[in-house]
Amino acid sequence: MKTVFIIGVGLIGGSFALDIKKLHPESTIYGIDNNEAHLEEAIALKVIDKTAQFEDLKHADLVILAIPVDAAINVLPKVLDKVSDNAIVFDVGSTKEDICAKVKNHPKRRNYLAVHPIAGTEYSGPKAALLGLYNNKTNIICEVEETAFKLQEKALKLFSDLGMRIRYMNPKAHDKHIAYVSHLSHISAFMLGKTVIDKEKNERDIFDMAGSGFESTVRLAKSSPAMWTPIFKQNKTNVIETLEEYISNLNHFKKMMQDDDFEAVYNEMESTNYIKDILNGIK
Amino acid sequence: MKTVFIIGVGLIGGSFALDIKKLHPESTIYGIDNNEAHLEEAIALKVIDKTAQFEDLKHADLVILAIPVDAAINVLPKVLDKVSDNAIVFDVGSTKEDICAKVKNHPKRRNYLAVHPIAGTEYSGPKAALLGLYNNKTNIICEVEETAFKLQEKALKLFSDLGMRIRYMNPKAHDKHIAYVSHLSHISAFMLGKTVIDKEKNERDIFDMAGSGFESTVRLAKSSPAMWTPIFKQNKTNVIETLEEYISNLNHFKKMMQDDDFEAVYNEMESTNYIKDILNGIK
Repeated sequence: MKTVFIIGVGLIGGSFALDIKKLHPESTIYGIDNNEAHLEEAIALKVIDKTAQFEDLKHADLVILAIPVDAAINVLPKVLDKVSDNAIVFDVGSTKEDICAKVKNHPKRRNYLAVHPIAGTEYSGPKAALLGLYNNKTNIICEVEETAFKLQEKALKLFSDLGMRIRYMNPKAHDKHIAYVSHLSHISAFMLGKTVIDKEKNERDIFDMAGSGFESTVRLAKSSPAMWTPIFKQNKTNVIETLEEYISNLNHFKKMMQDDDFEAVYNEMESTNYIKDILNGIK
Repeated sequence: MKTVFIIGVGLIGGSFALDIKKLHPESTIYGIDNNEAHLEEAIALKVIDKTAQFEDLKHADLVILAIPVDAAINVLPKVLDKVSDNAIVFDVGSTKEDICAKVKNHPKRRNYLAVHPIAGTEYSGPKAALLGLYNNKTNIICEVEETAFKLQEKALKLFSDLGMRIRYMNPKAHDKHIAYVSHLSHISAFMLGKTVIDKEKNERDIFDMAGSGFESTVRLAKSSPAMWTPIFKQNKTNVIETLEEYISNLNHFKKMMQDDDFEAVYNEMESTNYIKDILNGIK
């Protein structure tokens, strides 16, 4: 792992860069990014060692593609076109079906591993990169059998060194379930933020009334629209399904309140308290 | 502040007990609770010094009523019936209109202060009590002019010693705005939890896919139904209004996705990112 390329030097790519440099101090970490300011910042923060061009990818041992999913789907084939037979390339996007379909017949398909690390914060850019971000986090790998054995092994060794738990799924199941446990949470937070901002826009001091509960529930509404819009677009069918079920549950809750059936309201909340046991399993 | 009574020795009442004991080591903290196990636990944890009966309230300098809002509205008049002219009594409930109306004509109205500390966690019971919970938190006081000057002063001194920021509001405005910045967040979290549990109940391992974003957004779904059902009941009209606006925003988001108008989706999220600036003001 001597020559590592990070395409997209933001929170996710930058955090991989920091961890890899710590594990392999002898490696050189190259950054490629459309955003010149991010590249400069990444160098200044020592997130990457050097900047590079697309042509340099032919020297890569490892390429991590950490850009929004709409860009990733177009850039991945071009990366595969450039890399040598010994390079492992993985993306980190929150949708897996379209990108796997895109490179299904690419001559270098076996150099690619479809990866989704369940890690991050609501911040973005190189300054959001964190050493140790991936420790104890889940990493979902799709279509592992489509990747060359030796390159699977190389990537899995890295994930193991980073302290990640591996889960294997097919891309279709990944996109369906991640819509529930991740994408829907983002929409729920964004719309909660919008509802309160719209109502209270002329009464800024009302936010003095907000406590840590509101802050926690609305936290994801700080997330980057540039990252999330393409995710919702690529996972449109699944996300709309989750939204419909969520809206239906909210309407049912409203109906119970309108009917003064507060015993049912109580029971609904009590049965959902079971989330405690589930969350205890999340690190 | 020698003789302090805490009615309801849970998270909120217990946290006041711990702070008051630290500020006034000479005081005796008495606990009153319907739940015998909680009383025993509160003694064992040194949250309170002694248990007491309702009749003992005549000796009180301070009474804190920290029980669910449906119980509080019935218990407050009985507390006021018992206390001496020099006692200050405050409740801590998340609704203020009904309780203020209830004691409006009580002969001891001037012994009561309507209080809502914006503090807490999703846990409950005496073991959830935290020293310093109220430091740097907002405390909303309603109808302050209805409380006797000397007793206002006594309570305000305590809140100041605890490090709280005071905000004065009328009960109607309190209940309307708190529906947005607190009550709605709880329903949004409960229904998010329900949507995911319903979908994934046969696939427990799917929760391995959930990360800290889901955990944050759904955290309030761990909250106590016994505390929250009466709040939704007392604040029904305001809460239903917030729910309708929230559901309408979610439907609009779904419509933009169905129409493939992802530019509008982007803009919607970008304008809500403004929540960052607002949250920076919340401690």
